[in-house]
Amino acid sequence: MRIAVLNGPNLNLLGTREPEVYGTETLAQIEELVRATHQAAGVSIDWFQSNHEGALVDAVQSFADSADGLVINAAALTHTSVALRDALLSVGIPFVEVHLSNIFAREEFRHKSLLSDIATGLVCGFGSQSYVLGTSALLSHLKAK
Amino acid sequence: MRIAVLNGPNLNLLGTREPEVYGTETLAQIEELVRATHQAAGVSIDWFQSNHEGALVDAVQSFADSADGLVINAAALTHTSVALRDALLSVGIPFVEVHLSNIFAREEFRHKSLLSDIATGLVCGFGSQSYVLGTSALLSHLKAK
Amino acid sequence: MRIAVLNGPNLNLLGTREPEVYGTETLAQIEELVRATHQAAGVSIDWFQSNHEGALVDAVQSFADSADGLVINAAALTHTSVALRDALLSVGIPFVEVHLSNIFAREEFRHKSLLSDIATGLVCGFGSQSYVLGTSALLSHLKAK
Amino acid sequence: MRIAVLNGPNLNLLGTREPEVYGTETLAQIEELVRATHQAAGVSIDWFQSNHEGALVDAVQSFADSADGLVINAAALTHTSVALRDALLSVGIPFVEVHLSNIFAREEFRHKSLLSDIATGLVCGFGSQSYVLGTSALLSHLKAK
Amino acid sequence: MRIAVLNGPNLNLLGTREPEVYGTETLAQIEELVRATHQAAGVSIDWFQSNHEGALVDAVQSFADSADGLVINAAALTHTSVALRDALLSVGIPFVEVHLSNIFAREEFRHKSLLSDIATGLVCGFGSQSYVLGTSALLSHLKAK
Amino acid sequence: MRIAVLNGPNLNLLGTREPEVYGTETLAQIEELVRATHQAAGVSIDWFQSNHEGALVDAVQSFADSADGLVINAAALTHTSVALRDALLSVGIPFVEVHLSNIFAREEFRHKSLLSDIATGLVCGFGSQSYVLGTSALLSHLKAK
Amino acid sequence: MRIAVLNGPNLNLLGTREPEVYGTETLAQIEELVRATHQAAGVSIDWFQSNHEGALVDAVQSFADSADGLVINAAALTHTSVALRDALLSVGIPFVEVHLSNIFAREEFRHKSLLSDIATGLVCGFGSQSYVLGTSALLSHLKAK
Amino acid sequence: MRIAVLNGPNLNLLGTREPEVYGTETLAQIEELVRATHQAAGVSIDWFQSNHEGALVDAVQSFADSADGLVINAAALTHTSVALRDALLSVGIPFVEVHLSNIFAREEFRHKSLLSDIATGLVCGFGSQSYVLGTSALLSHLKAK
Amino acid sequence: MRIAVLNGPNLNLLGTREPEVYGTETLAQIEELVRATHQAAGVSIDWFQSNHEGALVDAVQSFADSADGLVINAAALTHTSVALRDALLSVGIPFVEVHLSNIFAREEFRHKSLLSDIATGLVCGFGSQSYVLGTSALLSHLKAK
Amino acid sequence: MRIAVLNGPNLNLLGTREPEVYGTETLAQIEELVRATHQAAGVSIDWFQSNHEGALVDAVQSFADSADGLVINAAALTHTSVALRDALLSVGIPFVEVHLSNIFAREEFRHKSLLSDIATGLVCGFGSQSYVLGTSALLSHLKAK
Amino acid sequence: MRIAVLNGPNLNLLGTREPEVYGTETLAQIEELVRATHQAAGVSIDWFQSNHEGALVDAVQSFADSADGLVINAAALTHTSVALRDALLSVGIPFVEVHLSNIFAREEFRHKSLLSDIATGLVCGFGSQSYVLGTSALLSHLKAK
Amino acid sequence: MRIAVLNGPNLNLLGTREPEVYGTETLAQIEELVRATHQAAGVSIDWFQSNHEGALVDAVQSFADSADGLVINAAALTHTSVALRDALLSVGIPFVEVHLSNIFAREEFRHKSLLSDIATGLVCGFGSQSYVLGTSALLSHLKAK
Repeated sequence: MRIAVLNGPNLNLLGTREPEVYGTETLAQIEELVRATHQAAGVSIDWFQSNHEGALVDAVQSFADSADGLVINAAALTHTSVALRDALLSVGIPFVEVHLSNIFAREEFRHKSLLSDIATGLVCGFGSQSYVLGTSALLSHLKAK
Repeated sequence: MRIAVLNGPNLNLLGTREPEVYGTETLAQIEELVRATHQAAGVSIDWFQSNHEGALVDAVQSFADSADGLVINAAALTHTSVALRDALLSVGIPFVEVHLSNIFAREEFRHKSLLSDIATGLVCGFGSQSYVLGTSALLSHLKAK
Repeated sequence: MRIAVLNGPNLNLLGTREPEVYGTETLAQIEELVRATHQAAGVSIDWFQSNHEGALVDAVQSFADSADGLVINAAALTHTSVALRDALLSVGIPFVEVHLSNIFAREEFRHKSLLSDIATGLVCGFGSQSYVLGTSALLSHLKAK
Repeated sequence: MRIAVLNGPNLNLLGTREPEVYGTETLAQIEELVRATHQAAGVSIDWFQSNHEGALVDAVQSFADSADGLVINAAALTHTSVALRDALLSVGIPFVEVHLSNIFAREEFRHKSLLSDIATGLVCGFGSQSYVLGTSALLSHLKAK
Repeated sequence: MRIAVLNGPNLNLLGTREPEVYGTETLAQIEELVRATHQAAGVSIDWFQSNHEGALVDAVQSFADSADGLVINAAALTHTSVALRDALLSVGIPFVEVHLSNIFAREEFRHKSLLSDIATGLVCGFGSQSYVLGTSALLSHLKAK
Repeated sequence: MRIAVLNGPNLNLLGTREPEVYGTETLAQIEELVRATHQAAGVSIDWFQSNHEGALVDAVQSFADSADGLVINAAALTHTSVALRDALLSVGIPFVEVHLSNIFAREEFRHKSLLSDIATGLVCGFGSQSYVLGTSALLSHLKAK
Repeated sequence: MRIAVLNGPNLNLLGTREPEVYGTETLAQIEELVRATHQAAGVSIDWFQSNHEGALVDAVQSFADSADGLVINAAALTHTSVALRDALLSVGIPFVEVHLSNIFAREEFRHKSLLSDIATGLVCGFGSQSYVLGTSALLSHLKAK
Repeated sequence: MRIAVLNGPNLNLLGTREPEVYGTETLAQIEELVRATHQAAGVSIDWFQSNHEGALVDAVQSFADSADGLVINAAALTHTSVALRDALLSVGIPFVEVHLSNIFAREEFRHKSLLSDIATGLVCGFGSQSYVLGTSALLSHLKAK
Repeated sequence: MRIAVLNGPNLNLLGTREPEVYGTETLAQIEELVRATHQAAGVSIDWFQSNHEGALVDAVQSFADSADGLVINAAALTHTSVALRDALLSVGIPFVEVHLSNIFAREEFRHKSLLSDIATGLVCGFGSQSYVLGTSALLSHLKAK
Repeated sequence: MRIAVLNGPNLNLLGTREPEVYGTETLAQIEELVRATHQAAGVSIDWFQSNHEGALVDAVQSFADSADGLVINAAALTHTSVALRDALLSVGIPFVEVHLSNIFAREEFRHKSLLSDIATGLVCGFGSQSYVLGTSALLSHLKAK
Repeated sequence: MRIAVLNGPNLNLLGTREPEVYGTETLAQIEELVRATHQAAGVSIDWFQSNHEGALVDAVQSFADSADGLVINAAALTHTSVALRDALLSVGIPFVEVHLSNIFAREEFRHKSLLSDIATGLVCGFGSQSYVLGTSALLSHLKAK
Repeated sequence: MRIAVLNGPNLNLLGTREPEVYGTETLAQIEELVRATHQAAGVSIDWFQSNHEGALVDAVQSFADSADGLVINAAALTHTSVALRDALLSVGIPFVEVHLSNIFAREEFRHKSLLSDIATGLVCGFGSQSYVLGTSALLSHLKAK
């Protein structure tokens, strides 16, 4: 079983800046946590981050050939990118949407996701645990098929 | 550690009616699955279901005295009950919102939850696994405090 | 053939209060009129009224086991109760929506029904005749199936 | 007692085209069904159909002189014709609005009728039975006056 | 002279929970304050609280037979209950709407009351004094009739 | 100088029906009043009424060849007919919009006219005097050019 | 017969500034034109202009004691002044609304008048002739009463 | 203790005009009623009325230096004056909003107040008693601080 | 192969009026251009224009029996006629929507077409070439079936 | 070169009240800062403040005769005064809009200015520096013409 | 004559994935079809595709120097990219908007294009024929200039 | 002191294309103007332009390490890029938003900026002077800290 985890704009700053707001956990540490969680089960995990919408669309297209499913934290692009939505619709493999924070407790314009209605499911609000739960949920879903 | 799981209107019909739509899993079986998941960890779980908004408000108030946190699938009341929202705000203990289906892939009026912005987090779209993930997320959150 | 007629909040006041506004016909008299209409045809009729949303949800669930179809005048809950809508969707038996008054000639917020789009049909504006026509329409529909 | 039944655009196609969608019953057959229903009671029935809004306005004006009440299925004009609404307001005789289908279960723009709030009542969703019930309701209403 | 004071969901928690937010005054203490204010004038006061919408509708109906007027703090139901509105419209006795807090200084969805336009008047924002002023205003209004 | 006065749906009923609402003045009498007003000045006046939108579009097109300007009371079509607007835009001769009643004191949907922004001016609310004032204003406007 | 003509903010600039836009006719010249029109009929005319909303409210109140009716060009206050609307409602004498330009052919926010629905009628788009027609209409209306 | 009562446009007309609508009580009589109510308690009361928004802003600024709190019936300016809101925000002393009528039972545009969310509280719908209750509530609030 | 081209209100004025705005090409010349384009291929073309909505509905119904597909420029009716939409839905043959101008570069109310979502496709903005391209596209579509 | 600086309601309170919120700088000190900035360049500066909309309209009209350009901080009237907008449009001299605070970081209703689209430019968010920058920008603009 | 055809995100997947949904025609095959259509006429065609908004903006800028006109299928960016709109506005050469599918028959958010109102024209709904028709229309338009 | 100036899509075209619309000043000349303004004060200035949203996000992140503050003209991305907003929020250094034109005098969709409410301030409408004023304002703000 092989899955890919895609990360959107500004997530590369996690933990290295404003630790009092975002905590001291870096994206690399979250990657390690996710890999450790699924190591015993022999799951192969691809990890990707970019600040460019086009690069994320490219990534969705290429990982669709090699992975069984995707977990995506599209960050700011969650709310604006029809292109990312179309890429996910086109490749048609299952994906789970995750967010570190509870997007419904933040600004109004973050309450609307362009991805939620085509996702298998959504996990948000649990910090790095959102990634752990999201990848677990994806694997359960893939096994059940 | 003690948590309560609250279930709203019509969830008592799960599995006993229209199995081709909702599957054959009953609410009692989901309860068993949740209990089994956390048995080893010695977590105490209270389980409650009602078709009455007032009874759910009463339950939130009373479980707030005995439980460390709540998991709630408010079903139809998710979208209409300010009273349930106020009860959860008043008692002030952490709660996680769960849904069997992906509410963002259903009718427009189900996209707005009156509970999401005051919840610790949200899990939806994974069937009975939403309960497993939601209770796990709540327990992680309670331990981290 | 067996049908159930469900009545929502405040309909118990019909005829006993403000006769200059609502007429002198009581809900019991409407019940008698409906029973008399269908007596010859040997139709069995269950009659129910409650001011509690939860009690009406319970009633939809239980009558669904014994009746062939429902006629419902949900009164104020017509416009606010997603729970009642979900109960009717879950049990999946045919139902006809009736109203004593023409709801489209009243306040704006009464123009939108949460039940109309899933009903077999709608009859409104004919006073107690709405019940007679609605139960007749339901029986025609059941026979045609 | 004399009533007129008015039918709007495209209803002349009923039954002669796309029977898998609209059934095989023609407008002429519905007319026969309505006439048969009220024959014994000696009710005189005028029947009219046109694809032209202006012709329907003319008809409302002229039938208002000869009939005691109207039954109208304005079809598409239900949602757009202020002129038809004004004609019905001007002549001031009772009318009942009917539709073959449940207009609330169709596209959004069919949920709003420009006639409902000035009608005596509304019957929709019962196929040709809507005409039978609608004319019966009109006759009951006329007798009660 | 006899009046009834009705209290909606979660008001039973007043003063016993989160005193730093809602103060230490309980609903029982507010009841005592109101009784003391009008004792000398020989006013009879009925006091009622429930978390159930249906129970409040029942209460409006039954108190309408025994009381000259009502004071109601519908709490969360202020913004969602058409059934409560209909009950108050049906019984037709005068009522005054009160709120402890200034509802216009809180969340957007609390700015719209389903009761204000049919109330005699509205008092809000003065804590327990809102009850004292609201009952006084109701009594003045009843005497002036 | 030659002008045409166009009248929309249902205006043919003026004065002959419901005199207690619309007065006893007929459209023919208004025509006489307008002709009498401008007789001395030698103004030639064409008068037209139809319940058909298409006939009014035809009339705008044909009168544009013979008249110097138009006065139009489009009645219900004021609020719905883009075709009439386009006809008036296409022929490009000056026109004045008139209404017997004050359309801003009637239903919400009558507050928006599809003709006002392309008219020379608007006169409404003065009964048959609206026609007298409107034709006078048109003639002043034509002379000033 | 005595009428008053009230003029709102910036109308004092008419004709003295930007003649290429607003023409060379001053407000004093319009006043002369209106006086000349009604001189023979012995109509007494009061004329008032102010840039202050409060001064116009004062004027409505005081002229209501001496005049039989008002003609008002409220200029910019047409679209924003509830106080002017309330003054006109309070004094309750007939008034006609006039505008030099066709307000429906200008910016969106000028399409809505706070005065139109309580006016006897409206005349707009005919330059200074709007005042001549508006005062004539008011006098006809006063005579007809 | 010293308070000021401010009154907005057209309130000077109270009682002297249209007594069948607004009653025969004048603003001066309301002033006397308020003074009489608080005389025994030695409260000093300043009373002010103007039809000018600017004069009311000036009054808010000057009374803020001499008074402990304000009661304001801004009348029409309640719904349009950001300047009055800003004046009240700037001076920062407590104020209570009052209205003679129930503004929620009147036209739509009177349902929104620009002052309510920054007021201590709101009293409306009790005629001159609104002033008595509002000044009493303000004094209780000032004493409690 | 046989197709029909339908033209809505005011298109009969093309080229004969205001040539500086609409060009000098008449509807007859466009008809000739279309016939010439498809002459070699032996396509039979019916051409129809009317200012009457009802006549266009009649035409859609009758051409549906003789033609393989339709090209329609509904002009103003594009934005208002549900009857035309229903006619096209009822007859169920393929049709292409064309416009001479780019409707998205014109007034807001012309941006919404009631026909686009049920058309095979849309061509607009190319003047008479829109007809040439639209008929070619229809023929390609018919051949591909 | 001569310019005028106009200040709207409540700006006279600057610095004398609530220094912890608005700072200790008075409007007189800002005036001095602006005068000092442009003294060397020999710019003549008129300075004006009023709480009255009408007085500001008068000021715009009179300064338009003596000044080359205006700088205006309309305060609360920025969002409500069509009269001020019309005055600025009528006199037609260049003006710059300034605000002490960043109006886009404040309440929603302050985000819309009725002046911005007709101003030469806008400067906001820099405290008293907004006046320095705004007057400098106006002078640059006037010299460039 | 030289034209460029620009293709937006995910169009590179055409035909190579989900042939049952999008058909088996690849973007390369559409390119060949377009080249073949215009080969005889000696038209030079540049072809470009990218998943990056910035790369498409760069392309619009650079092709504007070498091409006479553009044909653009912006895919998802049609609905979100103001940058692409600004690029097309800046370079100011004619362009035609094309879509494979009928965007008006798809999701609501695809009905609004940010490019249509500044395009020469629009062709959509004819699959690869949309490109053939769109390039032909552009060439006709360029020749007519 | 070191600041960075960031420029969004299509600004590289300034001055080299359509000089009659945008003037003949290039972005390089604006850069020189800004550098010259602050040269004497020894301010170090980084200058950056890109048509790619991702590249601008990268730039915000990297300049945040080397600069004391940013000036940003995000051009089209001002209205669509949540990613740029998040980048600016994440790095947390002061920034000033500038625009060459008065964005409030342009199309509706340019009136809303996703950056204004988190900026220190905004300068727009003064052409290249907007950059001079914006960088000066930023330096004043940095010195004041």
